[in-house]
Amino acid sequence: MTRGFFIGRFQPFHNGHYAMVERIAEDVDELVLGIGSAGDSHSTNDPFTAGERIMMITKALTDLDLVTYAVPIEDLDRNSVWVSHVQSMSPTFDVAYSNNPLVFRLFEEAGVEVRQSPMFNRAVFEGTEVRARMIEGENWKELVPDAVAEVIDEIDGIERIQHVSDTDANDG
Amino acid sequence: MTRGFFIGRFQPFHNGHYAMVERIAEDVDELVLGIGSAGDSHSTNDPFTAGERIMMITKALTDLDLVTYAVPIEDLDRNSVWVSHVQSMSPTFDVAYSNNPLVFRLFEEAGVEVRQSPMFNRAVFEGTEVRARMIEGENWKELVPDAVAEVIDEIDGIERIQHVSDTDANDG
Amino acid sequence: MTRGFFIGRFQPFHNGHYAMVERIAEDVDELVLGIGSAGDSHSTNDPFTAGERIMMITKALTDLDLVTYAVPIEDLDRNSVWVSHVQSMSPTFDVAYSNNPLVFRLFEEAGVEVRQSPMFNRAVFEGTEVRARMIEGENWKELVPDAVAEVIDEIDGIERIQHVSDTDANDG
Amino acid sequence: MTRGFFIGRFQPFHNGHYAMVERIAEDVDELVLGIGSAGDSHSTNDPFTAGERIMMITKALTDLDLVTYAVPIEDLDRNSVWVSHVQSMSPTFDVAYSNNPLVFRLFEEAGVEVRQSPMFNRAVFEGTEVRARMIEGENWKELVPDAVAEVIDEIDGIERIQHVSDTDANDG
Amino acid sequence: MTRGFFIGRFQPFHNGHYAMVERIAEDVDELVLGIGSAGDSHSTNDPFTAGERIMMITKALTDLDLVTYAVPIEDLDRNSVWVSHVQSMSPTFDVAYSNNPLVFRLFEEAGVEVRQSPMFNRAVFEGTEVRARMIEGENWKELVPDAVAEVIDEIDGIERIQHVSDTDANDG
Amino acid sequence: MTRGFFIGRFQPFHNGHYAMVERIAEDVDELVLGIGSAGDSHSTNDPFTAGERIMMITKALTDLDLVTYAVPIEDLDRNSVWVSHVQSMSPTFDVAYSNNPLVFRLFEEAGVEVRQSPMFNRAVFEGTEVRARMIEGENWKELVPDAVAEVIDEIDGIERIQHVSDTDANDG
Repeated sequence: MTRGFFIGRFQPFHNGHYAMVERIAEDVDELVLGIGSAGDSHSTNDPFTAGERIMMITKALTDLDLVTYAVPIEDLDRNSVWVSHVQSMSPTFDVAYSNNPLVFRLFEEAGVEVRQSPMFNRAVFEGTEVRARMIEGENWKELVPDAVAEVIDEIDGIERIQHVSDTDANDG
Repeated sequence: MTRGFFIGRFQPFHNGHYAMVERIAEDVDELVLGIGSAGDSHSTNDPFTAGERIMMITKALTDLDLVTYAVPIEDLDRNSVWVSHVQSMSPTFDVAYSNNPLVFRLFEEAGVEVRQSPMFNRAVFEGTEVRARMIEGENWKELVPDAVAEVIDEIDGIERIQHVSDTDANDG
Repeated sequence: MTRGFFIGRFQPFHNGHYAMVERIAEDVDELVLGIGSAGDSHSTNDPFTAGERIMMITKALTDLDLVTYAVPIEDLDRNSVWVSHVQSMSPTFDVAYSNNPLVFRLFEEAGVEVRQSPMFNRAVFEGTEVRARMIEGENWKELVPDAVAEVIDEIDGIERIQHVSDTDANDG
Repeated sequence: MTRGFFIGRFQPFHNGHYAMVERIAEDVDELVLGIGSAGDSHSTNDPFTAGERIMMITKALTDLDLVTYAVPIEDLDRNSVWVSHVQSMSPTFDVAYSNNPLVFRLFEEAGVEVRQSPMFNRAVFEGTEVRARMIEGENWKELVPDAVAEVIDEIDGIERIQHVSDTDANDG
Repeated sequence: MTRGFFIGRFQPFHNGHYAMVERIAEDVDELVLGIGSAGDSHSTNDPFTAGERIMMITKALTDLDLVTYAVPIEDLDRNSVWVSHVQSMSPTFDVAYSNNPLVFRLFEEAGVEVRQSPMFNRAVFEGTEVRARMIEGENWKELVPDAVAEVIDEIDGIERIQHVSDTDANDG
Repeated sequence: MTRGFFIGRFQPFHNGHYAMVERIAEDVDELVLGIGSAGDSHSTNDPFTAGERIMMITKALTDLDLVTYAVPIEDLDRNSVWVSHVQSMSPTFDVAYSNNPLVFRLFEEAGVEVRQSPMFNRAVFEGTEVRARMIEGENWKELVPDAVAEVIDEIDGIERIQHVSDTDANDG
């Protein structure tokens, strides 16, 4: 039995993430999706809570033939202990997947096998694009699984991101 | 669709917890198991990491006809914001289950429906008993689901709790 | 103009505190009441939130001929920086009042003038006594100013402390 | 009796804030001024400590016919629990006032009544302007109540902001 | 070249610690002394600051033919990341020394070589004994190196521990 | 006996720092080097851990005729308590050295003697330059003491900074 670990902020979980999971599913029997920056929400870059992201991921992956775990990972703001933190919060895993150079390096220094793939870069672009379309009122639904669009509608997610994206950081 | 929330430390997940889940399953379609004190581990009262407890819960409930989520909840050490913290980390829920008077009160003051039942008291007794038997080398396996015993064996859990229970808090 | 500083947890603000304020009022023109452990609430020893304690203090002292400030002080859990923390949160003060030996020592090491008085010991006894009576349903109102009793009634404070005092720390 | 809540960083408390308080005073009997980012000080954007800001607010509002509370609110860096945090630190309030879209949204999601007004936008501009004039040695006193100017003179506030505004974040 | 790591609270550094260092010096070329609970001070169990303990250790070991480093380690309150935290704060080391079962277990689970010796138990007893004598005004100097006694005299350490040991945790 | 305190991030310890230490050595008998942002590592601006920086400093200064202490100082993110924090972590010192205006101001407000010198500005420039050369694969060794270059080679420091400098902050 092989278990993989794939970390992301999943703000929101989109088609790029879905494609990555399908690709990883070829390698592993079980997959942990670590929800990064779990404590962040209600901001332009991090609109959704960890609980909302658990729902998106769980519902989007329900038909996939793969055992998955969606695990919130709160920030510790200490790169040197980050791998230990992740390992304590997650079911044990054999291999990590990431194209983020910092994450890649941290796992590597800790002696954890970590794999990357050019297709992973798509996710960064798509996360930014989805949030931009949400704010501008353009067609974002085509970029996410149907189940995710339903969750976002249910929680009035578009109204929220449009509202908070209007915030001036300096309250005077 | 009704979703419930049941918080515990699950150190480890034992038969008392299992019976509670079965009881709650009569009321709800989905159940979130909030893993409290998620950051604590390697101590007599909190031997197992959040990741290990996720595995115990997931494997123990796999045959149950109930959609379940196992969600680690790190301590915030602020009773006044605890309900908001839980709500941000968990999929939304309609009703919380607890016999812990503090937890009951906090949900109640926050306007969240919360239910208790005399049978819930069994869990407190059983958690203490399981850990005592583990430390003493007595028969603890009869108090937990088989799947939980397997997880604990796999991670050398008995050796760990016996080792750390020997710690003198004062290192001189 | 002389300004004093008097720290306490004020759980709740009682007649012993009131007598101390009257005594200090002979020395100073203005008095800051630092509300210690401001983040703690909903427990047997710390039943009330900082906001609730601000209301108790403000209403209890309204008729006193003394300018007062009620300032919440969150715990930093670092004795060595505690005085700096207090000084940054409070209007500047000339003299601190305390019979707590740790608080006395910390101010003294920091070069802040600090005064004590035998009558201050009464406060410790009375805080414990008031909370015990609240939990047991005995006559606690005679130990606190009328204005404080009104605040506690308004927030259902007795029900809260009775509820949480029933909590078993170990949730099993 | 109606109590309002108005949050700001008040770095420093200026005429724009004063005008807002006068406007809110038409609606409410009591007003809590929540001093945001209470732990920040000694920087270009946040020059003054919470204690110094309490003094500014208290002295500036002393002649106003309104019961006011100045309450420091330390940052929690968790949008999802921010409203609970504020509610625990403040006397209870019936309505919040803010033009900050994030603050507005957070109160709204928590079911708290919140009001905005076009005139509130003036405050953001004025805070930035006051600090810029302080740093440049221009006439900042005309932008703040006299009592605030006195507090700032007393604490050598101009020297401080000029000094720290010179800091290079990178110490090499 | 072999470097060892020896963790303790060193409240204060006493003859038992000194004997341990001498014993370890037979194995290694360099030794890191990790000063645990570095942020704690001014309490009965933890009277001295990290800086004071650095001075004690440095002066007590100055004549020893061993390269030593005294490194403060602040508490993280997370057993699962503790080893990573220590490793990031300390020069790299080949072997750790401890008789504390928790510390031993944590290093062992992390794959770090760790050694124990019956003589290490002496340290726990001696730390408690030294502090008790300090509080009671008995002969504590015979239990610590001369250089440590000088540091403690210089900082008025006995007055401090006697003062704070008198503190009632409950301030009423 | 005079002891000085010199704070820096020392990412890495370079020739500019070395020249400053030589300059300060004319004034003092002992010098504490406070390693700022001790918890930060594995980023472009803060590539090295506190432990790695302790090794750089200790090895680079070994031939200097000056007693030195290398003390990690974790960030507290509270300017108002920063001096107390530093004082608790460091052996006592008589004079602080810094050209950072914020640090200068904080020591000054706390009544600590602090000295600056035009030559100190060189350090900021050099830290940035060293890291830029490391990332670009240019000659960085000429900017640091030989002992520092050896430590960096030993820990594969160049590979690390090149790797993490490639990180896109937004993981999509």
